[in-house]
Amino acid sequence: MTRERIYLFDTTLRDGAQTQGVDFSVTDKRLIAEALDGLGIDYIEGGWPGANPTDTAFFGEPPALRTARLTAFGMTKRAGRSVQNDPGLAAVLDAKTPAVCLVGKTWDYQVDVALGVPREDNLRAIYDSIAEVARRGAEPLFDAEHFFDGWKANRDYALSCLVEALEAGARWIVLCDTNGGTVPGEVFEIVSEVAKTIPGDRLGIHAHNDTENAVANSLAAIEAGVRQVQGTLNGLGERCGNANLCSLIPNLMLKDRYAKRFETGIGEDALARLTSVSRLLDEILNRHPNRHLPYVGGSAFAHKGGLHVSAVLKAPETYEHVKPESVGNRRIIPVSDQSGRSNIVSRLRDAGIEVRADDDRIGRLLEIVKEREFQGYAYDAAEASFELLARRTLGQLPAFFCVDGFRVLVERRFNAVGELVTVSEAVVKVRVDDEVLMSVGEGNGPVNALDQALRKDLGRYSQFIEDLTLEDYKVRILTSGTEAVTRVLIESRDAKGRRWGTVGVSPNIVDASFQALSDAIVYKLLREGAPASGAAVAPKGGSASWAGGC
Amino acid sequence: MTRERIYLFDTTLRDGAQTQGVDFSVTDKRLIAEALDGLGIDYIEGGWPGANPTDTAFFGEPPALRTARLTAFGMTKRAGRSVQNDPGLAAVLDAKTPAVCLVGKTWDYQVDVALGVPREDNLRAIYDSIAEVARRGAEPLFDAEHFFDGWKANRDYALSCLVEALEAGARWIVLCDTNGGTVPGEVFEIVSEVAKTIPGDRLGIHAHNDTENAVANSLAAIEAGVRQVQGTLNGLGERCGNANLCSLIPNLMLKDRYAKRFETGIGEDALARLTSVSRLLDEILNRHPNRHLPYVGGSAFAHKGGLHVSAVLKAPETYEHVKPESVGNRRIIPVSDQSGRSNIVSRLRDAGIEVRADDDRIGRLLEIVKEREFQGYAYDAAEASFELLARRTLGQLPAFFCVDGFRVLVERRFNAVGELVTVSEAVVKVRVDDEVLMSVGEGNGPVNALDQALRKDLGRYSQFIEDLTLEDYKVRILTSGTEAVTRVLIESRDAKGRRWGTVGVSPNIVDASFQALSDAIVYKLLREGAPASGAAVAPKGGSASWAGGC
Repeated sequence: MTRERIYLFDTTLRDGAQTQGVDFSVTDKRLIAEALDGLGIDYIEGGWPGANPTDTAFFGEPPALRTARLTAFGMTKRAGRSVQNDPGLAAVLDAKTPAVCLVGKTWDYQVDVALGVPREDNLRAIYDSIAEVARRGAEPLFDAEHFFDGWKANRDYALSCLVEALEAGARWIVLCDTNGGTVPGEVFEIVSEVAKTIPGDRLGIHAHNDTENAVANSLAAIEAGVRQVQGTLNGLGERCGNANLCSLIPNLMLKDRYAKRFETGIGEDALARLTSVSRLLDEILNRHPNRHLPYVGGSAFAHKGGLHVSAVLKAPETYEHVKPESVGNRRIIPVSDQSGRSNIVSRLRDAGIEVRADDDRIGRLLEIVKEREFQGYAYDAAEASFELLARRTLGQLPAFFCVDGFRVLVERRFNAVGELVTVSEAVVKVRVDDEVLMSVGEGNGPVNALDQALRKDLGRYSQFIEDLTLEDYKVRILTSGTEAVTRVLIESRDAKGRRWGTVGVSPNIVDASFQALSDAIVYKLLREGAPASGAAVAPKGGSASWAGGC
Repeated sequence: MTRERIYLFDTTLRDGAQTQGVDFSVTDKRLIAEALDGLGIDYIEGGWPGANPTDTAFFGEPPALRTARLTAFGMTKRAGRSVQNDPGLAAVLDAKTPAVCLVGKTWDYQVDVALGVPREDNLRAIYDSIAEVARRGAEPLFDAEHFFDGWKANRDYALSCLVEALEAGARWIVLCDTNGGTVPGEVFEIVSEVAKTIPGDRLGIHAHNDTENAVANSLAAIEAGVRQVQGTLNGLGERCGNANLCSLIPNLMLKDRYAKRFETGIGEDALARLTSVSRLLDEILNRHPNRHLPYVGGSAFAHKGGLHVSAVLKAPETYEHVKPESVGNRRIIPVSDQSGRSNIVSRLRDAGIEVRADDDRIGRLLEIVKEREFQGYAYDAAEASFELLARRTLGQLPAFFCVDGFRVLVERRFNAVGELVTVSEAVVKVRVDDEVLMSVGEGNGPVNALDQALRKDLGRYSQFIEDLTLEDYKVRILTSGTEAVTRVLIESRDAKGRRWGTVGVSPNIVDASFQALSDAIVYKLLREGAPASGAAVAPKGGSASWAGGC
């Protein structure tokens, strides 16, 4: 039996950008768009061209997407202007995206009060704008703003707005619960009524979480006939967020009620990357991942109760409604972590290191990883540091250089002409082939100064790291036990376009940064195939992670 | 028309205590029980007497509740024992609570595999245990574990378990979605069937959030007939949590679909304390409140988009589905580059600064805010820095102290016994009332050292900042133009429970941290009403933001 197709529309980069405290850069947007495309999302709404410099820059150089349709967001034209004479609409259309989603009013009260134009003019604005999108060759979508409130106030007018959009050629008419106040029973009843006029395979749902029902409202709308669902990664979005795609997608794919009737553009392999895509967003936003998120949260498959644990080991289905691996998550059982070993082996395989699952060293590595994660290390976004740790444990990492010590000074003072200035200076002492090299560097800040000093002279290794650049640097304070520690994540890049993440943890931010910087350099030397140092030095102390095998 | 009564059952202290990282003390439990009672919750499940020392102690000296029925949780008796000869059940009954909730199996698979007893014996265990609760004079409740899975596997057996409990005298038979895998459409259909056998006013629902549908499943069950709903504050609970009472209660009380048909034991006045009860739980757990929680979250009524802001001020119902005050929350209009003049004025009003919208200084402040946001400042999460900036611009900030300079040293070296150590030391030079104060501080890292040195001696201001603690510290590297700058966000707290955010931006992380630290102190002095310094010093250079008026 063929299943009906549900189309997934992501608005993390547009509606999600409205979240308090969220401020995407162009690079952030590009990374997220690529991850969404890799997942198999059908539409990616990238922002509002012309509304702000970031969105304009993003659309000016759009990411190369595999299958997803990049969508520009904008408003229907203003009443009293022609579509050719509306600079806002022009900016949206000029982005030349394959799809364009225009939002328009459908609540009579909003037309009267917010727009202050005759209701007929609003209908005309919807028709003309959608028709113009079609004329320009893009796929038109219509976001029916405040649709559910509009329906409750004046269903005839609300519906007539949808009909205008349909007749003008809108591929999708998206019912938006803009203020998020509608509950699932209402959504089901209203959408069922709408579907008598607008075919369900032309209808979409855009839900907000203000009653904690965004996912349920989306499912209710699907059950009532809609075939497109809009949402964001991790439910990002203004106020209480948008419908969470990281819950909706597995609900649609793993729950019989939906999986038997519907299919999405996402394959099983992609679904198994959902957890890592969810975590990527949090890394980009520099936020603590919410452990309690359904499916993708760190605690989603954590079992605490003693009763549960033995039951889970005997029959996982009693306390796990789906398999954790199906969404790329893992079971956490405080007593014995069964999933750990195969997890590690699969991560090593990702790094190109082949080890048999029953190799003794896997158990040792697992212990080390657990201990380090307890200390605050996070390897989700620091795959380079994970690989170095694994290679070190497996004895597969050459010794390159050894750092004997460093010193960093930051001073804020008045200079000779009475200006307040802040200067940073670092001194690093490195050994290569038994030769001691001392370098001093100056920088914008202590980490930059340290980076400068560290790279200034690595002897014969300097040539390998000339194209290494620090792309991103993130810091977070973690509380592990009673002790506050600093975790630094660094993203590096080289001229070949390779990107890699490294991590450092210490109570001291400079120390943590140094670990991550050092790992970044060692990883680069490894990838370049740099030869080992003549004098392999035994590790000193427990911090074997941060120095290149020293 | 009389409305039907929905009974609210809170299990924060029992099922909520299963959450990873949650460990209530007896005092915590008492505080929470009293807050729930004050709200008007009908049943408070306090824990499992006999299962652990905390729960036993809590029930040994139960809190004095106004109207709520304290409920003890336990398991139905073991098969093969009489009710008089089961020590687990005895411990539960001996707590002598007005209500007792016993959980039992209803899924045939669980009876066969987990219990390993004949199915008939399980029915007998349910009957005998519930009848014993009734005989001892307590109100009996039956938690039907795994009911929805049981129904799908063998509906006749699952139903027969419920019938046993009913016939034995259970006041409530609670349908538990133990592994949280059921979706709302299924809940509605299954409960509708069950309600043909068990009257709805004897049925309850206990939902988990593993598909992000705990609230929706509870509502679906109510629509299908159940009249008791179980949940926790803030949706606390194992894995993805239980149904969130902080969302369910306002949904039932403020949404027409429910409010017209149903009533709860909670009055309007109590509802207006919901946000503070939600925050109390986070305080007790020492967790950051989730800003995005529906109704009670700090961002639940936050408006960022410029379009929204002017609409919200004109007609709040367009972007607010309920009045923030109805649940004791408030509207927040964050400052961002998308905001305009009305936004600034309303934000100032929140800070207690009255300025007319046509005041010239508003335009100047708006320019400064835009310029600073371009440089990388973000005031969304740094409302204290915004207020200081505004007061400075409006000439309403007293001069407290002036920092003439600082020096920070971080050194990694081998110590006398050959260990690699990293030490941080900071020296700060401050002027108060023309007196120069020099302090030195040592810390885990440079920012901590600077913080220590800065607070060590602020002369007569020291007394005002004794209870100031640094709660969170976040760093992000931003690229503004070709220049990389560091943005530091600091969250501070004091003994009065006040929390405030401050921001600093500089190419130098220590400098940026210093700005945010400095703002945090100045804000605290302002809130404490500390008197201005005798010697107001004219600003030096352009960095007037970071020093206290100096």
